[in-house]
Amino acid sequence: MSDTDWIVVTDEAARAAAHAALRAAGCDEAHARATAAVLVRAEQDGCASHGLFRLPGFVAALRCGKATGCAAPDVTYLAPGVVRVDGKRGLSPFPTEVARQEIAKLARTNGIAAAAISNVHHFSALWVDIEPLVDQGLGALVCTAYVPFVAPAGAAQRFFGTNAMAFGFPTDDGGLIFDQASAATARGELQIAARDGKPAPEGAGVGPDGLPTRDPAQILLGAQSPFGGHKGSSIALMVELLAGVLIGQPTSPEAGREEAARGALEDTGPPNGGVLLIAFDPQKFGDAEGWRAHAASFFADLRALPGVRLPGDRRKAERARVARDGVRLPAALWRQVVAAGAEAAGGTRPYNRD
Amino acid sequence: MSDTDWIVVTDEAARAAAHAALRAAGCDEAHARATAAVLVRAEQDGCASHGLFRLPGFVAALRCGKATGCAAPDVTYLAPGVVRVDGKRGLSPFPTEVARQEIAKLARTNGIAAAAISNVHHFSALWVDIEPLVDQGLGALVCTAYVPFVAPAGAAQRFFGTNAMAFGFPTDDGGLIFDQASAATARGELQIAARDGKPAPEGAGVGPDGLPTRDPAQILLGAQSPFGGHKGSSIALMVELLAGVLIGQPTSPEAGREEAARGALEDTGPPNGGVLLIAFDPQKFGDAEGWRAHAASFFADLRALPGVRLPGDRRKAERARVARDGVRLPAALWRQVVAAGAEAAGGTRPYNRD
Repeated sequence: MSDTDWIVVTDEAARAAAHAALRAAGCDEAHARATAAVLVRAEQDGCASHGLFRLPGFVAALRCGKATGCAAPDVTYLAPGVVRVDGKRGLSPFPTEVARQEIAKLARTNGIAAAAISNVHHFSALWVDIEPLVDQGLGALVCTAYVPFVAPAGAAQRFFGTNAMAFGFPTDDGGLIFDQASAATARGELQIAARDGKPAPEGAGVGPDGLPTRDPAQILLGAQSPFGGHKGSSIALMVELLAGVLIGQPTSPEAGREEAARGALEDTGPPNGGVLLIAFDPQKFGDAEGWRAHAASFFADLRALPGVRLPGDRRKAERARVARDGVRLPAALWRQVVAAGAEAAGGTRPYNRD
Repeated sequence: MSDTDWIVVTDEAARAAAHAALRAAGCDEAHARATAAVLVRAEQDGCASHGLFRLPGFVAALRCGKATGCAAPDVTYLAPGVVRVDGKRGLSPFPTEVARQEIAKLARTNGIAAAAISNVHHFSALWVDIEPLVDQGLGALVCTAYVPFVAPAGAAQRFFGTNAMAFGFPTDDGGLIFDQASAATARGELQIAARDGKPAPEGAGVGPDGLPTRDPAQILLGAQSPFGGHKGSSIALMVELLAGVLIGQPTSPEAGREEAARGALEDTGPPNGGVLLIAFDPQKFGDAEGWRAHAASFFADLRALPGVRLPGDRRKAERARVARDGVRLPAALWRQVVAAGAEAAGGTRPYNRD
């Protein structure tokens, strides 16, 4: 692929283009702003698989009427430490923003709290969902199920979603956040490998015949493997229970059946489902005076190990690089985003950056 | 090894022998009862690596004065959803029992709650710590750090503990519980493999030279690998933060330094440290009427997949088998436990089963 197939834009231009495309597809200002921000944050952090690459999926979900772009989330307190934010079949970023505001208050009061974010279409990076909480000095855990793409340990059929989980802990230097699919490989990475004609990593999954393969297109048709064998499979199972069963939302197989009833799984964007968010306040766990220095000394020791790689380090380096060099996108994707923004969808006002 | 090197006893006899050994080593009745129960539960569930095999470690920790067997835990409410149970350098099972009683009340009121169990010597199976909560209809997550035995992703030196995490969710058929070290292989399994002259599983770790090996004795001297590469390493890191930094307890490297100051790491039983326990009440997450049936239908679909293995199934089968056939132990271990119980330790009254 030659350099002419790529384009470099500023992060602000990327955000404006995503915003325009979302507005044209029917998003109100709050949804367009929040969704554009999470997609561009992924680009800023060097994670193309969760950046503008996902925008056409969100637009498809809006255009086919599966998702709405203008639902005001409903907030209900279920217990002193639990809040439900009903996204009413909207895109996830704006309801998640509302959930963060609520859970931050609850966590500071109760020490630990949970938000059941329901009826949302989640299709973006999870670390972005918790980073603002970590920036406020809170710890957080978040997870979401998806549609069936991963074979449970021992099986060779799709059942679990790719089921990402992110965990964040505040530190004096920007916090530690990891975000990982419980699939061995993120589905977005397989899609990009297939697009770019590259092989999938070893152990990424099986083809439709149930046999291991390195062909990303065959794995996308077959089943992905969980990371780390039965232990990663357990994490995927935990995510189904927390983001599905616990909060009355579809598990991945259920979301898959709902999607199948609408047609092809990957043509109409992310399914309707839930997100479980837990936040905790380290000031309320018995070492209010000491935990920040304790974290700093722990990470100093960890970073001193030869060869060690810490979650998020690559993202932080990319963020600095992209701020300087701009966002690099496949030209075809950029044209698609710009074209989506230029389309006048029925009932939406022209894009107005504000 | 011939059959004559093994002995079969009833679970009640195993419990009585463990109880006597703990009493002789200085445990009061509450600590001896709770600790004997968790060790025998592991035997009943077919997990020899966390059964009576661990008793000599507990006894060593008591005998050398590192741990106490007669501290009454202190309970402090840190926030409406957070309780601290200070074990005052006692063995973990009894303080954990106290923490369960407290957290069950908090979770039912707040929806979600946490217990910071501090200053305990944890050396037993984690699923046993949460099973009574799951039996009461609560979900739970628990984790604990240890001493440095696992190399973080990218490194080849010990830093993380084996850092087990267990998760449980209630169901109509006894609950789903998984319990897994974030090491690729539980250290107890490596110790048993070394004892029995068997090779370690592929990818279990590196020797003192930093190179991969299948020799369990070399891995015990070197560093274990996390499960699933960098993703399991992230889970190990999360456990250090939750069970160490968050609750003001030693991280694994800190516990290792404390142990090193006392002498050899594995001669004096488990280190002093913390356990983080989170519990949640599915009745408070928005689907109080539906979640049990939802869980049942999810697990029915999961069990219908050819080849699938669910966490805990082997334990449940073993529990039924051991109830019928008895506990099978190495004869040398049994003699050691019985001998420990026969020793009259200064200041303890004779063993009296009550």
